[in-house]
Amino acid sequence: MNPAGSRAEDLADAAVAGDRRALARLLTAVENRTPTAEAALRRLYPATGRAHLVGITGAPGAGKSTLVAALIAEVRAAGRAVAVVAVDPSSPITGGALLGDRVRMQAYASDDGVFIRSMASRGHAGGLAATSTSAATVLDAAGFDLVLLETVGTGQSEVEVAAAADTTVVLEAPEMGDEVQAIKAGLLEVADIVVVNKGDRPGAQRTAAQLRAMLTSTVSPRVAAAGGASPAGDDRAARPRPKRPEVLITTASTGEGVPALLAALDRHRSAGREGLADGARLARAEAQVWAIVSERLRDRFHGTTAAPATEETLRAVVEHRLDPYTAADQLLASLTGGGPAN
Amino acid sequence: MNPAGSRAEDLADAAVAGDRRALARLLTAVENRTPTAEAALRRLYPATGRAHLVGITGAPGAGKSTLVAALIAEVRAAGRAVAVVAVDPSSPITGGALLGDRVRMQAYASDDGVFIRSMASRGHAGGLAATSTSAATVLDAAGFDLVLLETVGTGQSEVEVAAAADTTVVLEAPEMGDEVQAIKAGLLEVADIVVVNKGDRPGAQRTAAQLRAMLTSTVSPRVAAAGGASPAGDDRAARPRPKRPEVLITTASTGEGVPALLAALDRHRSAGREGLADGARLARAEAQVWAIVSERLRDRFHGTTAAPATEETLRAVVEHRLDPYTAADQLLASLTGGGPAN
Repeated sequence: MNPAGSRAEDLADAAVAGDRRALARLLTAVENRTPTAEAALRRLYPATGRAHLVGITGAPGAGKSTLVAALIAEVRAAGRAVAVVAVDPSSPITGGALLGDRVRMQAYASDDGVFIRSMASRGHAGGLAATSTSAATVLDAAGFDLVLLETVGTGQSEVEVAAAADTTVVLEAPEMGDEVQAIKAGLLEVADIVVVNKGDRPGAQRTAAQLRAMLTSTVSPRVAAAGGASPAGDDRAARPRPKRPEVLITTASTGEGVPALLAALDRHRSAGREGLADGARLARAEAQVWAIVSERLRDRFHGTTAAPATEETLRAVVEHRLDPYTAADQLLASLTGGGPAN
Repeated sequence: MNPAGSRAEDLADAAVAGDRRALARLLTAVENRTPTAEAALRRLYPATGRAHLVGITGAPGAGKSTLVAALIAEVRAAGRAVAVVAVDPSSPITGGALLGDRVRMQAYASDDGVFIRSMASRGHAGGLAATSTSAATVLDAAGFDLVLLETVGTGQSEVEVAAAADTTVVLEAPEMGDEVQAIKAGLLEVADIVVVNKGDRPGAQRTAAQLRAMLTSTVSPRVAAAGGASPAGDDRAARPRPKRPEVLITTASTGEGVPALLAALDRHRSAGREGLADGARLARAEAQVWAIVSERLRDRFHGTTAAPATEETLRAVVEHRLDPYTAADQLLASLTGGGPAN
């Protein structure tokens, strides 16, 4: 066993045994994609698959953090353990995630049944969903019953985080503008459950009615594709959904409607367990595996031996001596045929 | 020459000769990543490299579309040809891009020196920047002097589109909230030029002063890395910038400040031509080539022969019989070693 491997085993075992500091360190390793993280995930993986992974997304201002706080209270009242991974837009300079109103959750600092983690959305295009899925795997192994992935629904990579969950909740606040924000942002297509939050505001019932009408009148491509979809990795439209999303109303600030939301989450999970969400799980596995394949290949292209050949190929593209397709074929040939870049 | 190849040659030649319909068809092929697009881009690539590629991004409401319209007018007044690729968040259901206030640009419908194209931001994680760069390559070959890439600055993939340009302009409107939106969204780090738009509003001078102070007091990692950065593909922080971004004030709705912005764009381009932006061009080439390599590999994994082996591997991951790292290693071995998935 190499040093990274044995350190990883210790970290993984400590995290599973309930050591919160070890858990936090392991999640940092996952976020930074270190060899420790890989070794730990290899060790933990067979023991996972029990947690319910719930993605929560929506336009800024829909009240995601407040709803997450209300859900935590509800889940704890039911005696279940809950972890939150909050994926935030962040600066490449600071590398830190914005905490926003998440500080209120510090009330749970001494509760072992609650674990909250912010994760930056920097770096590695397309790998954001894979990294947060790996973080969820660790929290699953650590024994949390629910893992909430909270992410702002305003970018492709960010939405993929929520869409990779077992159950995806899309939040909408009434009166956020002339049109329903979730539609504008293309979020409804990834929703298993739609929540109109800030239900005490005048437009809430009307917004919910609009959403229900819309979801009933459209034949969703997800529903249509549910029979014959193949695992398509990054193609959200190909993820089969068991049925049309429920539309619920909550007032997260008072807790109104939150018990009904938790019940809806449990129902969706049971339906998924009966096999309807098989395509979604295959797609999630593919995204995870693909992110690792990509990273391995990048490492090979930029490895000590391959780096000069890779840079020469890229420079030929920059100078318009070589088109990008021929360059890609050359790099691939060098990988699979034992050429200079392998 | 196969049929796709000869059709592609015809399309490419027609597009370069000024046939706008052929150009539009070619861009559709690029957006859908068809074999026609590949054959056409191979043919066009040696003739490209003359256009100035300008990314324009900012938070929603900063006035990107209005500024693009004002820039078009300015560029046309100078007798230069300009193309716009507007990358928008869009629904996977409709596949269409939101046009917003871009309809005003229909005034240029009969002007051969202006070409405007909306492009959906759907599908292919990490490939959005590569697709829009390919679209820019086509427009470059078609003889446009300036190619503007307009994208909303609220997601990782979307920001990468603007950051992949020769010159990246980040827009900020005064009084959009308590804090400067571009900082919150991590946009300043990709800026070559910062524009405070809506300059006729009370807070404009103060916002510009704040931004200048911020940009002067911070030692940007881009500036620090400008000497020894390697091409890092998806790592925005590694893109070397020649110097601290200029901060300009415009009022796009009246055209005030827009001539100064065009002059700043030209200055930045001249500086880049002197070799300072070499790292940025290498990074852009790598992103393009890498997107093609990824697509080729995905095709192999899901090809007729490989598909059953790939699905069996993924199913083992879903059922927790195999961890994702071992699965990735198996798929890679089958690719490079002539195993069952090759």
